[in-house]
Amino acid sequence: MNRRQFNQSLLGAMGAWLLEPSVHLAQPRSNLRVNGPRVLDHLERLGEYGRNPEGGVSRVAYSEADRQGRQFVIGLMRAAALEVKIDLAGNLIGQRLGGDPNLPPLAFGSHIDSVPNGGNYDGPLGSLGAIEVAQTLAENKITTRHPLEVIVFQNEEGGKTGSRALIGEVTAKELDRVTHSGKTIREGIELIGGNPEKLDEAKRKLGDIAGFLELHIEQGGVLETKKIDIGIVQGIVGIKRWNVTLSGFANHAGTTPMEDRQDALLSASRFIGVVNEVVTQMPGRQVGTVGRIHAYPGAPNVIPGRVELTLEIRDLDMAKIDRVFEAIEKDGRRIAREAGTTIAFDPFYTSHAAPTDERFRDIMEETSRELELTSLRMPSGAGHDSQSMAKLGPVGMIFIPSLGGISHSPREFSTPEDIVQGINILLHTLLKLDVVLS
Amino acid sequence: MNRRQFNQSLLGAMGAWLLEPSVHLAQPRSNLRVNGPRVLDHLERLGEYGRNPEGGVSRVAYSEADRQGRQFVIGLMRAAALEVKIDLAGNLIGQRLGGDPNLPPLAFGSHIDSVPNGGNYDGPLGSLGAIEVAQTLAENKITTRHPLEVIVFQNEEGGKTGSRALIGEVTAKELDRVTHSGKTIREGIELIGGNPEKLDEAKRKLGDIAGFLELHIEQGGVLETKKIDIGIVQGIVGIKRWNVTLSGFANHAGTTPMEDRQDALLSASRFIGVVNEVVTQMPGRQVGTVGRIHAYPGAPNVIPGRVELTLEIRDLDMAKIDRVFEAIEKDGRRIAREAGTTIAFDPFYTSHAAPTDERFRDIMEETSRELELTSLRMPSGAGHDSQSMAKLGPVGMIFIPSLGGISHSPREFSTPEDIVQGINILLHTLLKLDVVLS
Repeated sequence: MNRRQFNQSLLGAMGAWLLEPSVHLAQPRSNLRVNGPRVLDHLERLGEYGRNPEGGVSRVAYSEADRQGRQFVIGLMRAAALEVKIDLAGNLIGQRLGGDPNLPPLAFGSHIDSVPNGGNYDGPLGSLGAIEVAQTLAENKITTRHPLEVIVFQNEEGGKTGSRALIGEVTAKELDRVTHSGKTIREGIELIGGNPEKLDEAKRKLGDIAGFLELHIEQGGVLETKKIDIGIVQGIVGIKRWNVTLSGFANHAGTTPMEDRQDALLSASRFIGVVNEVVTQMPGRQVGTVGRIHAYPGAPNVIPGRVELTLEIRDLDMAKIDRVFEAIEKDGRRIAREAGTTIAFDPFYTSHAAPTDERFRDIMEETSRELELTSLRMPSGAGHDSQSMAKLGPVGMIFIPSLGGISHSPREFSTPEDIVQGINILLHTLLKLDVVLS
Repeated sequence: MNRRQFNQSLLGAMGAWLLEPSVHLAQPRSNLRVNGPRVLDHLERLGEYGRNPEGGVSRVAYSEADRQGRQFVIGLMRAAALEVKIDLAGNLIGQRLGGDPNLPPLAFGSHIDSVPNGGNYDGPLGSLGAIEVAQTLAENKITTRHPLEVIVFQNEEGGKTGSRALIGEVTAKELDRVTHSGKTIREGIELIGGNPEKLDEAKRKLGDIAGFLELHIEQGGVLETKKIDIGIVQGIVGIKRWNVTLSGFANHAGTTPMEDRQDALLSASRFIGVVNEVVTQMPGRQVGTVGRIHAYPGAPNVIPGRVELTLEIRDLDMAKIDRVFEAIEKDGRRIAREAGTTIAFDPFYTSHAAPTDERFRDIMEETSRELELTSLRMPSGAGHDSQSMAKLGPVGMIFIPSLGGISHSPREFSTPEDIVQGINILLHTLLKLDVVLS
């Protein structure tokens, strides 16, 4: 598609509301681009807040680095002509007026807090990318139909507190949880200018936003391996977790012949094999992980009598998760019995899958083609603030490649080229959504 | 063999030294028996020191319960006409004169300290059984050729401190180790009447004893399962332990497809399977155990990048241990490579196998037959003070069945019948050894 065709397609979509005489809108241009060097510089400068000596950042939510990083971001928002406010949950919100006062805001953004010893891109890319988009619109005097909201959510890494507060999911009990900063979430919210006592008033309801769009690094290696520029997120996978307990009989490792053992760790090791087999042999992109294991009593000279481990299954389809689990449970019970042990499954966590909106995906695909970038539809295996926002309106996510698939690590890296390309996709997707969404 | 035959066999063996005119010895009789009700009562009463509310005892070395239990034992020794002393290492020693002043003492005994939350038989059986044998000899006015020493070793469960002091193995560094009592070994030795500064003088040398004999519960289930009365210990198995590290790559459990993982825990689980396969498929009675495992970072949503586990192999033959390890190492390297991980083995503990003396075993077998008891030659998979004593002279061990193979537990139990039978075997084995040993 050449520039003319692009404009025609956009104008076609815009047809309906262009008839509205009150809207004064500078025409979006297909050759509009964000200022790459500027946003790369912003990313670099944000990375100074909480920088680790060995690279990457430790900018955990509510830490001094987080507080200072947020101040830096407020400055960038103001420079981008956004009107800054902090909502009752402590989220940073940069507002821009739209052409149609009757429309709900079109929101986009991400977070800037990191895990301990994390990287420079998980969160900042989508946050500073959104501000760069706003600044590009301002510089080009483009007014969208919808008001815009650049949202920088607080404490994504520590439990998506900011976005979950918007959907009323943060419990009073959760507020007392101590975070990596050493502060409770309650203390943290106060520190960053929210009001933990009025969290209820931070809630928004379905329809309060026209939609939400998030640019993020992939945090996996699919795009890099397949040499694809842009990931179009089909949805954020659902997650179920179980505590699994295998019980045998703890006994003396010297005096108990091999054939008389009820070794809970041997049984657990076979179970871990079963998890891998079931998950890899079923068609689909589900993943299954045993990430934590404890053997009791845990001495070199005692046959373990009990093993506790975690099982996690993720997929875009909650019913698929259940099917995978049923197969694991069935085979698990069989191998446990064969090893003279018992097995018990205790579900302790469920995160529901959040599909993205088909219109968002189609526009991202079209925009990628127009910018001559390759794209791939893929699930997001990681959780994101978009997952919460999906309860308030349609959502979409754009991924760019992560070098080596690494994230939550100082080695997290995306190339400057991929970063700028991703922000340009964000820009044009936003402009097209502004036309399409009501 | 009837009683007449038994006496002839004993007299035959005694022939040589019976010619010695200076020995005045009441004739051992094959129908000589220990006082069963008395020794069972003693065991019951010793069990009151450190008794747990839910049964069993916590009489860890150097605790108040241990100190009081030792006082009780001293009383029993004196009632058995033994002359009591405490050596510089804190071992309780009950001495009885022999007929031949030129012979080294024939020693027998065990320990009375327990593991935390242990049972009533592991240690006390051999200790109070030995005292009962001495008392039976005294009551029957039997004087052995050799002087006798009933030894109740201190801190067997916490590292065989008492018996290892006799062979000069207790290091100065070890003395500062804090034990379950809360006291260091140094403080403990002082508390019980030894002298930690003069531990060197507690040492004995090869030949200082004519032999050492220990009665003990099996601590395994072989005798009970096979319905055998008496276990004749072929030796105390050697032990080697390794720290095994499997290294893969820690990554996000949601964003890393199954085929791109280098999951150290999946690799470890296959390794645990290999250990079991190799150990069970080689002929022999070797055992192999993975008792401790840690996966890092150890979160439900992170693929483990590193797993540390312990490998322990035991056998009567140290060369066999090495062969088993080589097979495990070879297969382990292969499966680790296949899972995209590396594996490293770091040996950290060796305990050399201690074979028992063939003469001891033959006499125990003969004695069992004479008392119309079944017997089985078997390894001791657990460590015992006899292992240290093997460096000072020939040793032998007698096992009686443990119900369910359970030990180091309040559920540890041996029947009164088995206990009394075992002590009678101890009595007659001792008397025969007294004849045979120089």
